[in-house]
Amino acid sequence: MAMTGTLFERTLANADIESTFADAQIVVAMLEFEAALAGAEAAEGLMPQSAAAAIVAACRGAPFDIEWIVNEARRAGALAIPLVQQLRDRVAAASPEAAPFVHRGSTSQDVIDTAMVLVTREALLLIEADLGRLVEALTGLARRHLETAMLGRTLMQSAEVVSFGHEVAGWLAPLLRCRARLRQAGEAALQLQLGGAVGTLAALGDKGPAVARRVGEKLGLPVPAGAWHAQRDAWVALGCAVAVLCGALGKIGRDLALLAQGEVGEVAEARQAGRGTSSAMPHKRNPVAAMVAIAAATRAPQQAATLLAAMPQAHQRGLGDWQAELAVWPSLFIAAHGALRALADACAAGLEVDAARMRDNIETHLRAIGSGDDAGAIEAAARRAGAAAKAQLEAFETQNRKPVP
Amino acid sequence: MAMTGTLFERTLANADIESTFADAQIVVAMLEFEAALAGAEAAEGLMPQSAAAAIVAACRGAPFDIEWIVNEARRAGALAIPLVQQLRDRVAAASPEAAPFVHRGSTSQDVIDTAMVLVTREALLLIEADLGRLVEALTGLARRHLETAMLGRTLMQSAEVVSFGHEVAGWLAPLLRCRARLRQAGEAALQLQLGGAVGTLAALGDKGPAVARRVGEKLGLPVPAGAWHAQRDAWVALGCAVAVLCGALGKIGRDLALLAQGEVGEVAEARQAGRGTSSAMPHKRNPVAAMVAIAAATRAPQQAATLLAAMPQAHQRGLGDWQAELAVWPSLFIAAHGALRALADACAAGLEVDAARMRDNIETHLRAIGSGDDAGAIEAAARRAGAAAKAQLEAFETQNRKPVP
Amino acid sequence: MAMTGTLFERTLANADIESTFADAQIVVAMLEFEAALAGAEAAEGLMPQSAAAAIVAACRGAPFDIEWIVNEARRAGALAIPLVQQLRDRVAAASPEAAPFVHRGSTSQDVIDTAMVLVTREALLLIEADLGRLVEALTGLARRHLETAMLGRTLMQSAEVVSFGHEVAGWLAPLLRCRARLRQAGEAALQLQLGGAVGTLAALGDKGPAVARRVGEKLGLPVPAGAWHAQRDAWVALGCAVAVLCGALGKIGRDLALLAQGEVGEVAEARQAGRGTSSAMPHKRNPVAAMVAIAAATRAPQQAATLLAAMPQAHQRGLGDWQAELAVWPSLFIAAHGALRALADACAAGLEVDAARMRDNIETHLRAIGSGDDAGAIEAAARRAGAAAKAQLEAFETQNRKPVP
Amino acid sequence: MAMTGTLFERTLANADIESTFADAQIVVAMLEFEAALAGAEAAEGLMPQSAAAAIVAACRGAPFDIEWIVNEARRAGALAIPLVQQLRDRVAAASPEAAPFVHRGSTSQDVIDTAMVLVTREALLLIEADLGRLVEALTGLARRHLETAMLGRTLMQSAEVVSFGHEVAGWLAPLLRCRARLRQAGEAALQLQLGGAVGTLAALGDKGPAVARRVGEKLGLPVPAGAWHAQRDAWVALGCAVAVLCGALGKIGRDLALLAQGEVGEVAEARQAGRGTSSAMPHKRNPVAAMVAIAAATRAPQQAATLLAAMPQAHQRGLGDWQAELAVWPSLFIAAHGALRALADACAAGLEVDAARMRDNIETHLRAIGSGDDAGAIEAAARRAGAAAKAQLEAFETQNRKPVP
Repeated sequence: MAMTGTLFERTLANADIESTFADAQIVVAMLEFEAALAGAEAAEGLMPQSAAAAIVAACRGAPFDIEWIVNEARRAGALAIPLVQQLRDRVAAASPEAAPFVHRGSTSQDVIDTAMVLVTREALLLIEADLGRLVEALTGLARRHLETAMLGRTLMQSAEVVSFGHEVAGWLAPLLRCRARLRQAGEAALQLQLGGAVGTLAALGDKGPAVARRVGEKLGLPVPAGAWHAQRDAWVALGCAVAVLCGALGKIGRDLALLAQGEVGEVAEARQAGRGTSSAMPHKRNPVAAMVAIAAATRAPQQAATLLAAMPQAHQRGLGDWQAELAVWPSLFIAAHGALRALADACAAGLEVDAARMRDNIETHLRAIGSGDDAGAIEAAARRAGAAAKAQLEAFETQNRKPVP
Repeated sequence: MAMTGTLFERTLANADIESTFADAQIVVAMLEFEAALAGAEAAEGLMPQSAAAAIVAACRGAPFDIEWIVNEARRAGALAIPLVQQLRDRVAAASPEAAPFVHRGSTSQDVIDTAMVLVTREALLLIEADLGRLVEALTGLARRHLETAMLGRTLMQSAEVVSFGHEVAGWLAPLLRCRARLRQAGEAALQLQLGGAVGTLAALGDKGPAVARRVGEKLGLPVPAGAWHAQRDAWVALGCAVAVLCGALGKIGRDLALLAQGEVGEVAEARQAGRGTSSAMPHKRNPVAAMVAIAAATRAPQQAATLLAAMPQAHQRGLGDWQAELAVWPSLFIAAHGALRALADACAAGLEVDAARMRDNIETHLRAIGSGDDAGAIEAAARRAGAAAKAQLEAFETQNRKPVP
Repeated sequence: MAMTGTLFERTLANADIESTFADAQIVVAMLEFEAALAGAEAAEGLMPQSAAAAIVAACRGAPFDIEWIVNEARRAGALAIPLVQQLRDRVAAASPEAAPFVHRGSTSQDVIDTAMVLVTREALLLIEADLGRLVEALTGLARRHLETAMLGRTLMQSAEVVSFGHEVAGWLAPLLRCRARLRQAGEAALQLQLGGAVGTLAALGDKGPAVARRVGEKLGLPVPAGAWHAQRDAWVALGCAVAVLCGALGKIGRDLALLAQGEVGEVAEARQAGRGTSSAMPHKRNPVAAMVAIAAATRAPQQAATLLAAMPQAHQRGLGDWQAELAVWPSLFIAAHGALRALADACAAGLEVDAARMRDNIETHLRAIGSGDDAGAIEAAARRAGAAAKAQLEAFETQNRKPVP
Repeated sequence: MAMTGTLFERTLANADIESTFADAQIVVAMLEFEAALAGAEAAEGLMPQSAAAAIVAACRGAPFDIEWIVNEARRAGALAIPLVQQLRDRVAAASPEAAPFVHRGSTSQDVIDTAMVLVTREALLLIEADLGRLVEALTGLARRHLETAMLGRTLMQSAEVVSFGHEVAGWLAPLLRCRARLRQAGEAALQLQLGGAVGTLAALGDKGPAVARRVGEKLGLPVPAGAWHAQRDAWVALGCAVAVLCGALGKIGRDLALLAQGEVGEVAEARQAGRGTSSAMPHKRNPVAAMVAIAAATRAPQQAATLLAAMPQAHQRGLGDWQAELAVWPSLFIAAHGALRALADACAAGLEVDAARMRDNIETHLRAIGSGDDAGAIEAAARRAGAAAKAQLEAFETQNRKPVP
């Protein structure tokens, strides 16, 4: 049973993203690194093939005792130390002569950072998939309502007529840009970490670069020009791209929540069993997806800020700041994917759009400001908004067909 | 096995604070609330005693299925809904006639907020205890080194002579103020939440206040003048007091880390098996407690900021902001207590203070700036610093004897 | 012409709070400190009375050249250095023999921190005054609408009937608690800073404490047990109390904005010339006070986070963190007072409350959920809410009459 | 005299970046927008050429009364309203018939956002220039010290030998990536804002797109597919790129500060008159550039967080969140450029590198851990680090020659 995060954090997430960052999954990723390292060092003649085989076997054997590792890590100050020790003990039990080769020439940060890269790669795939679903659902929605007249609202006040398709196209634009940004930031950040004690791979002699190349190949990760132990910019820039996504999702959530108010009543999340109910008021249908999106947009800015605040890591490896970054990193992705999945599910299930109510709200507003109830003007404004939205949707398609830079 | 938080968050914490905010523990607290509510309503004639007894029995029976609750909560949008449903099913199985009385007149936020208050009360006791240990250890340290000459440093540059006792008294002062602040903020924040659907306890008719009084008594919580569903100031102010504590601990951590640098070498955390080792460099003794303290001080500002950002909760119950607050609340306390425990342990185990090295560093500095090596002047400065520190320690004692306001 | 802050920051503020933190005002406060220090040192025999008189005269003479000071400070790294130099030059021009006594025994941080305390004291008076106005206006509003039936809303959905007085009492409660918190936090934070180079006042020999006492008396500031150069907890706790106030104001702003939506139409800010107009839509009446309050609540969490993040200041004086704290401190107060003044003005000018619309919205909602239109039930619910609000208002009064601890 | 920001914020900045975001400069940029709009509308036949000429003349005439505008904006809730009024009054005085055409079809947010884009374009040029200077200075430094042996430090403890060139190459890598990221984020964010009341340019009829194209051309800004009134992702992503730069600069600052400690003494900022002095301790040479960089890295995470937090702007124009974004935007750039300029100046002036002290510190460390003083091993490690650094520098050059995507 995979779980991670605090209780209420978990209720805003989902099983997929929880599994991705589950304790066991991170440990598995750490062991993948150790296995790849052993294989690479054997291939470069730095350890016997038999030693590498023994290490790989131990990495892929019975699950490690995570609670023991966590407890020891609290004293040691780094998760990798007890994990490496447990690995070495297992290797020693099977092939004593292989034990000294475990983790050779590497350092705690190599295995931890690379493991975080590996699980983050999975998280980005989840985000990519659900972003695709949300984009598809919203694109359909925008197309269906290109000219559905709707009241535009500025500074929380009724303004002039737009169309619902125009509103939805407005939600879509940042999502498409976020997708491009995430792909690019992901590509830049998902790199092997392998620098040894101080980032020079000195313990591997001349074989350092070759070993790194092999480990990178095995794990499917590019090898950067140098270790990024204390140079976190690409990593943090990825975190910022995720936080920007949360902001874009939060805007959708906020608009949905405003449209779903009883007095507005223009849009509702689809009715589903057990969804959005209230323990005190059975009539209620709470906008749960909007809630999850807003909750993510409320947390993500500060999660990104922690990553940014942790950037000035001293010399070759930071004290306290790197560790803070590691602690908060999964929470950011859990919040983001939780929001994305919730909105994608809600929109794929079909938002209920009440075009008649939208029209009523326009007419009520026009009467309130003493403006004549001119149907032609309303439709003209909606058509104009629809045309603008259509142009945007077409621009999106062109942009989507462009290869990722 | 209690656990909460993400993997690296957990390595910066400890089993005690993890248990306090563990999923199971929060659920237990929620059930304590439901049991107390049933008891109170029965006492006020709002349900039969037998119904209350059945509810209380179900609350205290076999552990609830937390994973089912979490999964359902993801759809429902509130953890209390599936929990109440599971409770109602259990009650119905044993005493069908009691089932309708479960959670009567209450709302999700009542049970969730009150449960958070109950577990937070435990967390504050942990903080109080370890704060006491740290204060005691530092007080002893300050007394032993009142006149141990040490170089003062400003803007990261060597400045003039102080004493190590003066430095330590400087660490102590905020801790004592934090203790007073936490006690007061805790007292203000640890209040019953019971308002029903919209904060008026309307469903309980005239019995609302009496029921609240009884629930409060049972749980040992004061009853506020009104529900604080969307008025989070006292709660967030407590969170801020915890964040201020993290800042004070982070300052100790940073100073310790600076003093423990190889080139300074004035203080070290005590040598203990498995503590502060390195996976790549066996000679290292990393300042683990300082690391944990800095990691907390790096995260806490943003955790507090999330609480503050979530304050503008709409009308009678917020959408997304309240939920964000709940998600981040435990992480703040876990970070804070993790740091506090780590420093308390390190200081209780005895910091290694190298007075000779302190003296060397002073003399080297004086030579570097061309100032004569005047032993008398050094000692006079240290004595003066010691006298100031002594006055501070005495002021602390007086202050400590004052009753909490 | 006093001004401070960036352009759009200024449009969210007002002339009073801008003046308080204006460059010239902070410089005046720094000179007040230098004058008080000279007077105290002369009284303790550390300088001739004539030297003190010359220094005091120079401090109170022609305005200093602030732009020169700022430019020099950029090289020197501290504002106090060129200010003290300019002061010393002026003193030297009039009384050469007095020049060496300028700033004697003190350090940059003494004069800067104390000046910030002095201007912050003024800012807190402004906050106190406008908080009083807002509390008074809201108390009247709550009393007038104790039983005005209004739809309660939870999770942004129509819920059950409360009263507008109950809503307003909900806004009041945190304001009263904020007032008490600010008074207490202010008292704890508004203390003299005087520690000399490394916090021991060593350069004043045995006269340090006596000088401090005299400076404190002159400036009306208590003298703390020790310098708080790098111990910022009381100061930051005050900042947090201000941020909590912003959160409470933001909640009022958000509720007002929601109530002022065209489709809700229950409350509006009073109509005033030039207020809340739109450059594109002349019919609009934008909720400007709500806007300013939300803008403050959006910034304050991060401003407080910066103060918290800057707490771990190394040894006797921090490098970069103290300076970051100074840079952001006024912005927090400017945001807070801007919001407070805007809401106080708007509420004092009289919110327009549309009780008929509130009733309509209730009835529309009841019809929508298929609940009968039972006037008696609505009134009963409003009466119950009114009674709860009345009890709260009475509790506030009792609490208000209690002396500040 | 241009100035902006709070007093201590200003001491961390410089005249160039202050001028860029000065009140007057933003007003000038707003008037540039109004002039371009008038010109474009005349070209499209939406107003007489003579009206456009009158508007352009008024925009370029005598400076506007900024304090009046700020004061009015406080009531109106938007800076553009009094500015447009002042402009209209001036136009009316000269050419009454032209006055109705002022600001035609546009909205406050169009002029404000576009003005912010224009001044931000200037700010990015400043950043680009100083980033270039810093990169050049550090590249030279790295090349000169490729094999200068230096102690690597991890978790604030002495670790193994690297070279100073390797350390500096580590500082360079993020700067080069930041430059690429800023260029790309700038290109994406620096776009015209022109949407009219609700983003559809409805008031311009069919001429909307053509007018936008002309305004964009005039101002040198691309025209996006749609107005980005409430879609701030590209803008906030630029802010995040600036914050990441601050983190990278903060890391340089922190390392410099650690290396400049008296006990380490390996690097110092160049000695310059009035630089880094102390008001209490004349011998001090404080690392001022490091201070400014750390102060920026302490503020920027929260400034970026505010931008992110302000993203969920309701419907067609946000209330309070957009305004918060505007208020904090210049502060982020002022902090970033302040830090960049300070480090570029310090590095261009020449850091003092003490290679002998570096060697001493290594040898002292090796003795302390009981490792033999093996000169050959030290040099071999430094050579290996130098080779790695050289490879990095070459990779940077290749990357630099690549065209910006």
